[in-house]
Amino acid sequence: MTQALSPNAPLIGQAGSRYRLDTPALLIDLDALERNIAAMAAHARAVSVALRSHAKTHKSVRIARMQVDAGAIGICCATLGEAEVMVDAGIPGVHITSPQVTPPKIARLIALNLRAHHGLSVVVDYPENLAALDRATLVAGKRLDVLVDFSAGHHRTGCASEADLAALASAAVAAEGLTFRGVQSYSGNLQHIPVRAERRAKALAQLDRLRGMIARLRDGGLEVPIVTGAGTGTFDLDPEARVFTELQVGSYVFMDVDYLRAMREGRNAPPFETALFVATAVVSTNARDYVTTDGGLKCFATDGPQPEVALGAPPGSRYEFFGDEHGRLIVSEGSPRPALGTIIECVTPHCDPTVNLHDWYHVVRGDTLVDVWPVDARGRR
Amino acid sequence: MTQALSPNAPLIGQAGSRYRLDTPALLIDLDALERNIAAMAAHARAVSVALRSHAKTHKSVRIARMQVDAGAIGICCATLGEAEVMVDAGIPGVHITSPQVTPPKIARLIALNLRAHHGLSVVVDYPENLAALDRATLVAGKRLDVLVDFSAGHHRTGCASEADLAALASAAVAAEGLTFRGVQSYSGNLQHIPVRAERRAKALAQLDRLRGMIARLRDGGLEVPIVTGAGTGTFDLDPEARVFTELQVGSYVFMDVDYLRAMREGRNAPPFETALFVATAVVSTNARDYVTTDGGLKCFATDGPQPEVALGAPPGSRYEFFGDEHGRLIVSEGSPRPALGTIIECVTPHCDPTVNLHDWYHVVRGDTLVDVWPVDARGRR
Repeated sequence: MTQALSPNAPLIGQAGSRYRLDTPALLIDLDALERNIAAMAAHARAVSVALRSHAKTHKSVRIARMQVDAGAIGICCATLGEAEVMVDAGIPGVHITSPQVTPPKIARLIALNLRAHHGLSVVVDYPENLAALDRATLVAGKRLDVLVDFSAGHHRTGCASEADLAALASAAVAAEGLTFRGVQSYSGNLQHIPVRAERRAKALAQLDRLRGMIARLRDGGLEVPIVTGAGTGTFDLDPEARVFTELQVGSYVFMDVDYLRAMREGRNAPPFETALFVATAVVSTNARDYVTTDGGLKCFATDGPQPEVALGAPPGSRYEFFGDEHGRLIVSEGSPRPALGTIIECVTPHCDPTVNLHDWYHVVRGDTLVDVWPVDARGRR
Repeated sequence: MTQALSPNAPLIGQAGSRYRLDTPALLIDLDALERNIAAMAAHARAVSVALRSHAKTHKSVRIARMQVDAGAIGICCATLGEAEVMVDAGIPGVHITSPQVTPPKIARLIALNLRAHHGLSVVVDYPENLAALDRATLVAGKRLDVLVDFSAGHHRTGCASEADLAALASAAVAAEGLTFRGVQSYSGNLQHIPVRAERRAKALAQLDRLRGMIARLRDGGLEVPIVTGAGTGTFDLDPEARVFTELQVGSYVFMDVDYLRAMREGRNAPPFETALFVATAVVSTNARDYVTTDGGLKCFATDGPQPEVALGAPPGSRYEFFGDEHGRLIVSEGSPRPALGTIIECVTPHCDPTVNLHDWYHVVRGDTLVDVWPVDARGRR
């Protein structure tokens, strides 16, 4: 259960507090976050596409509000629970990017729609689900905005063929309780292709196909006001295709190890920078070649690469998971080992599930803790 | 942030509610949990060893109380934050199994010791840390119980040599603010050796060495009232060595996939059974060979094996992670695919970090949800 207050709250405003935090602590470099949000907003304006930033990355009402203040028309949520938190905090234009299917989820969705006064939409990818949503909204007495999900790359959710997409879109238009708002197509599998040229070619091929399908829907007489998709790995490729009306980019706010490496290896120079770190402390120094830290599986996502050391360790040091509560910092031969209590800051592996392990963001400017923000939607399903 | 109430709370007491839960939901089979707790307590009584069950597995005040009611002399905690939750809930005999090193952690530990009226101890593995704890307790005016940590297998924390162990134990005895209570030696690396005979041989070799060291400490005039260690994988091996005065077993309450497979492949017949599951629902069915569920990286630990399907899918089905929010159930050829909305229950991978992803235990007896318990110490550092 979440503590009412981070143990670090008393340090707010003290010079040097960044390096005296109770650890492990999730850290935001606020200057970098602000620059990332501004850079993506500027890009969207420049290419005349709307932003509906994905809040699954940060799960924070505060950051959602910063994105909207910078010009985003709304935010995306991966779960209904995230959407409940965002809608109830007054964030406008909330779109749920995963189908809501079970009876308890549909009941919660309909209840949320009744209290959403600034826009709420959800994807559907199956006729049964569309019919269930239609029945429930008719009983509740308020129409629900839906987008039809098309399976682009991962084939995780979404209609599998153009015929299914067209049929479901027509059914959505015909449904009395629903308003058809458009199409979603997200290519998660493209985001992490390291070489930009390859990423670009694959993205444009997928988008060509999507553009054709949308054109045929429109030729058939359907209005398709929204086409939503894209991610941080393809944020500047999709607009070339001129198919998306809005971008669902999420990770750009933080830039995790995966994205950094992809950008680095692809010799891309993105306008985004690392804004998220985990600060850990050295808690045991009895081994010869490494020291043990307090940052393990319970504060870093383990589905991707290991964390990368950003600060506090000699050059060439390598970080490894070392159990639930511990990490291991392997120091290159000849380098001095960090002393007991030393703070080590790491760039995070896969940012979304890493954030999901923490209750608090420790917000720093330079060396000073300036605020503590809750991870409002952590754990919400 | 944790919701004040699980969305499933209204289902408590309804027949069949187990299969109507809002998903993903962490599930405890209460009958199995009770049998596991009773079986380990009976084992400890039979071999005349004390139990100080490891609460890092469950992080639940309720389960800690069940363990103490069944005869445990206390519980272990991996983090100071867990210990704060347990001490403040009145759980006796709380022992912290990781060194507490940084100034913020030492300050919290000393404050906790002042309000711990039913026993609190912590490990030390380094002279500097011992001295810092000694200074802090002298200022606070209440002695602190310490155990010296010896590095048995993982070399994660703990003294690396017998000489270091003896020196630190003597220093602890000499420290004015501390009470030396004994030695901790945990062999995390042994717990998951699949073949019992190999596990047994390696455990006994380590314990022989430990017994020799403890004997020499005692011969040297040191009182060593507590020798604590062992885990679920070696719970019935350690007592043969007659070195531990108490067992730190944790996972036996739940029995995750790792332990089940180890036990299965080692042809062992443990008196423990699976008591922990995650219930997920089928949310998309547009692919040919699989269906997509709502159980992904944010509700299963990813540092171990994939989840194992326990219920709701045709025999031979295989579960795979499929992104942050989704899982994929691969159905063997010719088997019917589960319909949209079907509830799939899975045995969890690595139970400790899996529990850490959830706010609530959904407690079932048979097919009925009988209670919802908070994961009290989730996320506490």
